[in-house]
Amino acid sequence: MKSRAAVAFGPNQPLEIVEIDVEDPKENEVRVKILYTSVCHTDAFTLSGEDPEGVFPAILGHEGGGIVESIGKGVTSVKPGDHVIPLYTAECGKCKFCLSGKTNLCSSVRESQGKGLMPDGTSRFSYQGEPIYHYMGTSTFSEYTVVNEVNLVKIDDDAPLDKVCLLGCGVTTGLGAVKNTAKVEEGAVAAVFGLGAIGLAAVQGLKKANAKRIIAIDINPGKWELAKKMGATDFVNPTEYDRPIQDVIVEMTDGGVDYSFECIGNVDIMRSALECCHKGWGESVILGVAGAGKEIQTRPFQLVTGRVWRGSAFGGVKGRTELPGMVLDYMNGDIDLDSFITHELDFKDINEAFDLLHKGESIRTILTYGG
Amino acid sequence: MKSRAAVAFGPNQPLEIVEIDVEDPKENEVRVKILYTSVCHTDAFTLSGEDPEGVFPAILGHEGGGIVESIGKGVTSVKPGDHVIPLYTAECGKCKFCLSGKTNLCSSVRESQGKGLMPDGTSRFSYQGEPIYHYMGTSTFSEYTVVNEVNLVKIDDDAPLDKVCLLGCGVTTGLGAVKNTAKVEEGAVAAVFGLGAIGLAAVQGLKKANAKRIIAIDINPGKWELAKKMGATDFVNPTEYDRPIQDVIVEMTDGGVDYSFECIGNVDIMRSALECCHKGWGESVILGVAGAGKEIQTRPFQLVTGRVWRGSAFGGVKGRTELPGMVLDYMNGDIDLDSFITHELDFKDINEAFDLLHKGESIRTILTYGG
Repeated sequence: MKSRAAVAFGPNQPLEIVEIDVEDPKENEVRVKILYTSVCHTDAFTLSGEDPEGVFPAILGHEGGGIVESIGKGVTSVKPGDHVIPLYTAECGKCKFCLSGKTNLCSSVRESQGKGLMPDGTSRFSYQGEPIYHYMGTSTFSEYTVVNEVNLVKIDDDAPLDKVCLLGCGVTTGLGAVKNTAKVEEGAVAAVFGLGAIGLAAVQGLKKANAKRIIAIDINPGKWELAKKMGATDFVNPTEYDRPIQDVIVEMTDGGVDYSFECIGNVDIMRSALECCHKGWGESVILGVAGAGKEIQTRPFQLVTGRVWRGSAFGGVKGRTELPGMVLDYMNGDIDLDSFITHELDFKDINEAFDLLHKGESIRTILTYGG
Repeated sequence: MKSRAAVAFGPNQPLEIVEIDVEDPKENEVRVKILYTSVCHTDAFTLSGEDPEGVFPAILGHEGGGIVESIGKGVTSVKPGDHVIPLYTAECGKCKFCLSGKTNLCSSVRESQGKGLMPDGTSRFSYQGEPIYHYMGTSTFSEYTVVNEVNLVKIDDDAPLDKVCLLGCGVTTGLGAVKNTAKVEEGAVAAVFGLGAIGLAAVQGLKKANAKRIIAIDINPGKWELAKKMGATDFVNPTEYDRPIQDVIVEMTDGGVDYSFECIGNVDIMRSALECCHKGWGESVILGVAGAGKEIQTRPFQLVTGRVWRGSAFGGVKGRTELPGMVLDYMNGDIDLDSFITHELDFKDINEAFDLLHKGESIRTILTYGG
C-alpha cells in the first residue's frame, strides 16, 4: 500500500516527505497505521551520521502510537483495530534473555533489527522501487509501518495515543531506570545529569520513589522549572563552578549521592555521575548513548571503594509486559506525560521538530499524521 | 617496650630487622603480640614505592595473628590474653558507613590510618628515638604492634593462629567478594582473573556457592593444580591466544559469564573481566589494586547493555562481625586455608618471603616470630 513517510535519504540532511510503498506484513509481522510520533535525540543522532549502525536511506522514528491495520500469519497478540505502541526493545518471551528474568534485552530479532531489516533479511519499505531501511524495529516516521509482533504492545483502547506514544522511549527509559535498574528506595539522595525527556522522566521516577533529595543538573537553567514540577529539589548549573561538578555534588550532599543517572550521552559526564556517588554504596546508571568510539574512564579505586557502575536500555522495561500498566498509570494520573509535550506539529513539519530539539527548545514535539 | 620488627626504611630496599620501641596503648588502643604474619602483594606494592599513600620509614604487614598483650583505657571488646586478628578495614559500628548496612568501609579511623598514624596524630613506634609510621592500621611486621580497638577482632582461643592469620586479608577478600559483593547464586558461570591468594579464594568461594562453571585465568599454568583443588572447572592461559581474552571466554561460555573477578590489579585485565560478562546481567568485581594514576576504560555500551561494574575491598566483609564465624568455618572444615600456605619461614627471613612472592613461587608464606 501507499504511505506518506519522512525518509532520511542520507546523513545530515533534512528528511523528505514522500509517498512510499509499504508491503503487506509477512509471518509474525504487523502493519500499523501510525497516528502520532515524537522525535527523540536518538533519531537526530542517527540522522547526523554519527551512529555507527546507521544506514540510509531509512525511515527513522521510534516513539509512536497507532492502530493495527493488518496482521501476518501466526500473529496472535494483536488484531486489526487494536491500539498499539511500537517497541524498539522487543520481547519474545522465549529467548535466553527473556527467560533469564534479569534483563529486558530480547535477542529474538536483534540481528536483523540492527541491520535495518526484517528477520527474513528484506525491507517492507520501498521508494520508486528501491528498498528503504527500517530503523530500530519501529520506523514510526511513516503513516504505515511494518513491525515484528514482538516489537509491538497492545494498550488500552481508551488511552490517548497522542500522549502515551511518549512511553515508546524516553519517558519509559527514565522512569524504568529508577525503578527497574537502580531500584531506588524511599529517602534516597539522587542526582540526574541532563534534563531532556529521559532526565526529566528520571526526576519524575525519583519523586515517585519518594527520594528525599533530587538534584537536577543541566547547563540550561531554562530546564529548571519543568524539573521542579517533576519533583527536583535542587538545581546545579555546572557552568557556574570552576571545579569538577562531582566535587560540587559530593560537597553539597555530605559525601555523595546514593544514585546518579547520566541522561546525556557524554562520557565525561558519565565519569562525573559515577564519581559524585557516595563511597561505599552509591550507584550510577548510564542512560545516555555516547558517540561512536567514545569510552568511559575512571580510577578503579572508585569501584573498589564501593561505587557501582550500571547502564540501562529502555529503563530495563519489558515493553509487552510492563507498558500496558504504565499506560494505565498515566490514565490514573500516576505518570505525568503531558508536561513533556512542549510542541505539537503536523507530520509534514517534521524537520522543524528536529530543529526545536537541536536548539534545546523542545522536550518532546508530538507530530500528528492527521487525515 | 622493646620489640623486634622488620622496618621498611625506604622504598624499594630490603626490610631491616631491628629492635624498635613500642609505646603503651593509649585510649581505645590495644597492644598485640604478633605470633604469625604473612606477606601479601599489597605489602610488596607499598614497599616498591608505587603506592601513592606509602610513607617511610614504616612497619608494613597486615595479615597477622596474635594475642592481646595490654589494652588502653576504654577498650572493652578484648582483654589481655585474647586471640586476635588485626583488621585493616576497621569496624566501629557507629559511623555513617557502619550504620548504612550497605558497606564494610568504616570511616572511624580512615584519615589517620591513611597517614600511617594513630588517631591522635602520632606513632607508637620508634627506632633510635625517631618515629616510624604505622601501616594499614595493623603493622604486623613487628613482634609487638599497637592498633585501634576498631582494627581488631577477637577470635576463638582454639583457632590455630598460624592458619587463620590468612583471614586478615587475601582469603577473606576473595571469599567475601563472591558472597557479599557479587552474591553469586547456585548454578552461575564465573571467571576468575589471576590465581594469587585472592583469586584462589574467589575460586573457593565460587565452589562454596555451587557455581556451575569456574573458569580460572592465569598466564602461569603452574597455578592450575591448586585452582583445580579449590574448585576451578576450566583453565585459560591468555598467552595461548592471539585475540582478546574476553572474546575467548565469551565464546567458550556461549555469550559470557554471569560473574567475573579481577584479582590482579591490572586495568587492562579489569576491562577484559568486564567485557567477558554476559550481556544483560553479567557483573564484574574488581578486587585488585591498580598502580597510581591507572584508569579503567570501556565503551559505555558495555554497561547500557546490562553489564555491571563493581569493586570490593576486603570482600565487603565486616571484620569484627564476620571474621569470628569465618574462623569457625575454617575449624569446621568449611573453609580451606591450609592449601594457601606454600612456605613457612622464620620472621628473620622476611625478605625471602618477598622474593618468593615476586617470583610467583609462593601463594602465602607464613612467618613465625618464634620464642
